[in-house]
Amino acid sequence: MDSITQIAEKARRASYELSTLSTQTKNDALHAMADALQSESALILTENEKDLNAGRARDLSKAMLDRLELSEDRLAGIADGLRDVAALSDPVGETIRGWKNPNGLEIQQVRTPLGVIAMVYESRPNVTADAAGLAMKAGSACILRGGSEAVHSNRVLADVLSRAATGAGIPASAIQLVPTQEHEVVTEMLQLNHLIDLVIPRGGERLIDMVVENSKIPVIKHFRGMVHVYIDEHADDEKAVAVAVNSKTQRPSTCNSCETILVHANKMGMIPSLVAGLRDKDVEVRGDERVQSAVADVTPTTDEDWSTEYLDLIVSIRVVDTMDAALDHIREYSSGLAESIVTEDYGSGRRFHLAVDSAAVYINASTRFTDGAEFGLGAEIGITTDKIFPRGPMGLRELTSSKYVIFGDGHIRG
Amino acid sequence: MDSITQIAEKARRASYELSTLSTQTKNDALHAMADALQSESALILTENEKDLNAGRARDLSKAMLDRLELSEDRLAGIADGLRDVAALSDPVGETIRGWKNPNGLEIQQVRTPLGVIAMVYESRPNVTADAAGLAMKAGSACILRGGSEAVHSNRVLADVLSRAATGAGIPASAIQLVPTQEHEVVTEMLQLNHLIDLVIPRGGERLIDMVVENSKIPVIKHFRGMVHVYIDEHADDEKAVAVAVNSKTQRPSTCNSCETILVHANKMGMIPSLVAGLRDKDVEVRGDERVQSAVADVTPTTDEDWSTEYLDLIVSIRVVDTMDAALDHIREYSSGLAESIVTEDYGSGRRFHLAVDSAAVYINASTRFTDGAEFGLGAEIGITTDKIFPRGPMGLRELTSSKYVIFGDGHIRG
Repeated sequence: MDSITQIAEKARRASYELSTLSTQTKNDALHAMADALQSESALILTENEKDLNAGRARDLSKAMLDRLELSEDRLAGIADGLRDVAALSDPVGETIRGWKNPNGLEIQQVRTPLGVIAMVYESRPNVTADAAGLAMKAGSACILRGGSEAVHSNRVLADVLSRAATGAGIPASAIQLVPTQEHEVVTEMLQLNHLIDLVIPRGGERLIDMVVENSKIPVIKHFRGMVHVYIDEHADDEKAVAVAVNSKTQRPSTCNSCETILVHANKMGMIPSLVAGLRDKDVEVRGDERVQSAVADVTPTTDEDWSTEYLDLIVSIRVVDTMDAALDHIREYSSGLAESIVTEDYGSGRRFHLAVDSAAVYINASTRFTDGAEFGLGAEIGITTDKIFPRGPMGLRELTSSKYVIFGDGHIRG
Repeated sequence: MDSITQIAEKARRASYELSTLSTQTKNDALHAMADALQSESALILTENEKDLNAGRARDLSKAMLDRLELSEDRLAGIADGLRDVAALSDPVGETIRGWKNPNGLEIQQVRTPLGVIAMVYESRPNVTADAAGLAMKAGSACILRGGSEAVHSNRVLADVLSRAATGAGIPASAIQLVPTQEHEVVTEMLQLNHLIDLVIPRGGERLIDMVVENSKIPVIKHFRGMVHVYIDEHADDEKAVAVAVNSKTQRPSTCNSCETILVHANKMGMIPSLVAGLRDKDVEVRGDERVQSAVADVTPTTDEDWSTEYLDLIVSIRVVDTMDAALDHIREYSSGLAESIVTEDYGSGRRFHLAVDSAAVYINASTRFTDGAEFGLGAEIGITTDKIFPRGPMGLRELTSSKYVIFGDGHIRG
């Protein structure tokens, strides 16, 4: 069995070849990988069943088991994801900007592959395919370290994908799965900053903390989704209810779902219809004293509610006296992923989007749009809440680096 | 005395105000800071003299003392640097790209301040002013931690700059110097990833290693300058000598100076004139066996030479049989900062710039151009060799983040 250093060295060598592959070769490989997922579905589902059985024996929650489970349909969906990546334009080699200096030097900033990307993730085996496909199209080798719950599924997926890719002309070590679940391997890997260029953790806070704590490699992370909708005093009632309810309920288990609704005091009159709209979708409504005074049967909020990412059909509502109070609340509790204001007032909208510092700031739209595909960027590997540029959905472009290429004719510096 | 957490909290609060300041206010403050450096020069030079005396007592090298020393002229230069930053266009609020989705949502990616930037640096007190000025114009608060050699100089500089900035309408804690030289304060600061958005170490490898090892905050670093010039078999002799000599000698103590020259075997005939050109500029020439056979008195290279950043008038020359061998050498030893090829052949130039993965790749030009000002980007805070986008000179733009602003009219996700 290769050590993690050997795996990383192989990935590094593969990355040299990957960086200069033609777009056609990469796209052919993505299609071959997609086809293989479907033609070898029997093998994959057998291995997946082993993980499901182990999960049932360990009493994993129904939600966890659901995230773990593969099926013909889900494999077809994952395969289509790879085909979608093939259809995206190749970011490698794109000229970002270029200019000519007074001394005649032509300077071009061009997009280049990152090199080697490590993914450390939990549970969902589809990440194995998504990450492998996006990294390859972005010209990088990837090292995948999935969770123990999905060990059989990840192993067979990585094997099927890697074989298909190699058959289509991709270097053999472009996609590698770390073959052991030992924890020390991850901390060891996180020291290899001379071989690995970026690490992306995907999972719970504990996993992300562990990676941040131990990594000498730059980390791009998506931390939490503590998301707010602010209903301004100049909001349209109907849009306010629609945006708030959609932000909360369209898929409550996702990071871009709203957890707290802030309502301007002059809009307290609409709280009953807001609560009714939420309850229509089976949301448990919690509220501060003024919300409780406006509607019956509202669970009183505690301080803890304002920083709790429910990821469930629960929402907290707070009444604020001014937009300043709303901005203060957001600065204190937001995780910087997404916030939305509902308003018909030009000044309120402008002030909100200038003052709120989140990866996505909405005016009169649901926070649920915070997603690479919804933005029109194509597939994504996560949404970064780091402030390092670029923030937001991590699509193909965001998985690249850049370099300057400078064309001279014997230019020397005087 | 404030604890480092209190300092960071103050910086965070200042960053909210800074992020929405007008360009005019920031520029006025930069001019006030520049003027103050010159009007308070007597005070500054008195404090600088204390550091110089302490340095002499500690037997600092002449080069170190020179880097530490301030003078009226040097202060004028630093002040002009701040005025240059005022003249640069404001990156905050720039629309990077924008589009309209089929559902009518307008999405704009706009440049935003990072928030709070920490600088950990050694020796040169000019970094105090450069960092404070660039961070402010980029809309971020900065926390400065200079080296013990420059403690008096940094203290008075930060004080003068901060007073001038505050007088011009900048929030009081926008520029803060860590008031102690205790090492623990740095490791403590590097844990504050909820308050500080980016840390930039500038100094020797030990300092950078320490920061990378201990930081939970994203780090952007400029590691080493192990820079190569490759003289292709299709090189023009005159350009080859000019580019190699300039890359080595124009300012040998800088990171973008060449340390190794690779010469194609078919170009061995020009080695005598190359060595003569280097020796004309007092360079000690080291070489492999074939170089030794071509010129007398060449110091034999050892394996160590290929990975030594001399930062001095020393260079190593190696003869390679093919461009592949040159590329292999560069992959093995380059630090990814800058490399140059000298060639008249289209295919060689194209192949080199596609295959070499460095922040700056030159064709027929000196590696010494690797510099924000030479590129035309304005002032820089360093040159990042990390692969996280964007790589290269860290100017104003590179000190920003981004966010998406999305304009809707009650849009919800279906």
